[in-house]
Amino acid sequence: MTTVIECHPLVAAKPEVPKSTTVNGVDTGKLSATIEAIKADTSLANFQFRLSNQWVGGGENRSRIDDFYGVGQEMRHKQPFFLVSDEPEVLLSEDRGPNAGEYVLHALASCLTGALVYHAAARGIAVKGIATRLEGDIDLQGFLGLSKDVRRGFKNIRVMFDIDADCDDSGKQELIEMAQAYSPVFDMLSNGLPVSCRLDDDVKKAETT
Amino acid sequence: MTTVIECHPLVAAKPEVPKSTTVNGVDTGKLSATIEAIKADTSLANFQFRLSNQWVGGGENRSRIDDFYGVGQEMRHKQPFFLVSDEPEVLLSEDRGPNAGEYVLHALASCLTGALVYHAAARGIAVKGIATRLEGDIDLQGFLGLSKDVRRGFKNIRVMFDIDADCDDSGKQELIEMAQAYSPVFDMLSNGLPVSCRLDDDVKKAETT
Repeated sequence: MTTVIECHPLVAAKPEVPKSTTVNGVDTGKLSATIEAIKADTSLANFQFRLSNQWVGGGENRSRIDDFYGVGQEMRHKQPFFLVSDEPEVLLSEDRGPNAGEYVLHALASCLTGALVYHAAARGIAVKGIATRLEGDIDLQGFLGLSKDVRRGFKNIRVMFDIDADCDDSGKQELIEMAQAYSPVFDMLSNGLPVSCRLDDDVKKAETT
Repeated sequence: MTTVIECHPLVAAKPEVPKSTTVNGVDTGKLSATIEAIKADTSLANFQFRLSNQWVGGGENRSRIDDFYGVGQEMRHKQPFFLVSDEPEVLLSEDRGPNAGEYVLHALASCLTGALVYHAAARGIAVKGIATRLEGDIDLQGFLGLSKDVRRGFKNIRVMFDIDADCDDSGKQELIEMAQAYSPVFDMLSNGLPVSCRLDDDVKKAETT
């Protein structure tokens, strides 16, 4: 967590970088510089994340994650990431990866944890450990189209946090509330968002293995 | 896709299994048996998916996916799955995995693709290939708490489908509409759902590596 990023664009945008202190593995100097740079030019906060997916067969499909847009420029991950989805045998496939619902739970766990850690760091609150357990309930009559009264997705998701930090339960509860207040995925799942789908024969078929 | 699952509980629940034909890698005989079994006992359609996550440091955290509940019993994947999330350097971490937003895109791509494939199989429509490209736009002023007017999550998600099947664009458009109509993750992201978070010191810390 102490790697110096020579060309960090947000830090570069602000000549005077505050003295760095690492809290929760987050460089709070760079975090402050990021916030100041965005306050000075809000367009730097516009990011676009992207993904290419290919169907393999049955319930299996694979994604490649590589480039994204942020801080006013095209960017790229250190290396491409590959993700495999599948369904278990009871749902008629080969069980070669987690299913889409389990990926939703992972996205939510990651995002709540990240939001908690970053916002605690910004406030100088040291967190020693976070473990979460998530459960999502779904009635597959919805997916199968057997009932119009049953929704397709999870009916609800429960997140249980075990937090190791030098504060009492009331303080830990505040950390959880902070995570909920700032987590992008918590917002998306709680409030929904516009999702548009269209046919486009020009989709570039990316290598997904 | 031709593995015979000796103890498939949904098939076992129906003595007369229709003759199997594989369409799109989905055994349509087992799919019909599944649907009939659920019609006879709707409680079989209740599934619960689960996940344990642990914070590693900075933006990095890891999940373990192993057991789930379905068809009236506790079940387990063939093997546990592990997922790593992180943030890229520009977002102040080490870029050891996709971030939570990218996992949301993967969950959506997987789910739309799976819904299209299974529902096409149920209708006897052979699909030869599906490639999707997804984009999600986010203004990080929301996550950083710099503006109350900016939402935390993606403002919108666009999904572009390239479908290889023996039908014209109008038929492919119908396949996309079918995917949207039945995809659990499309439903969750479009409409939102109740997500509850609470402190629970009894969260079992699972091995996540």
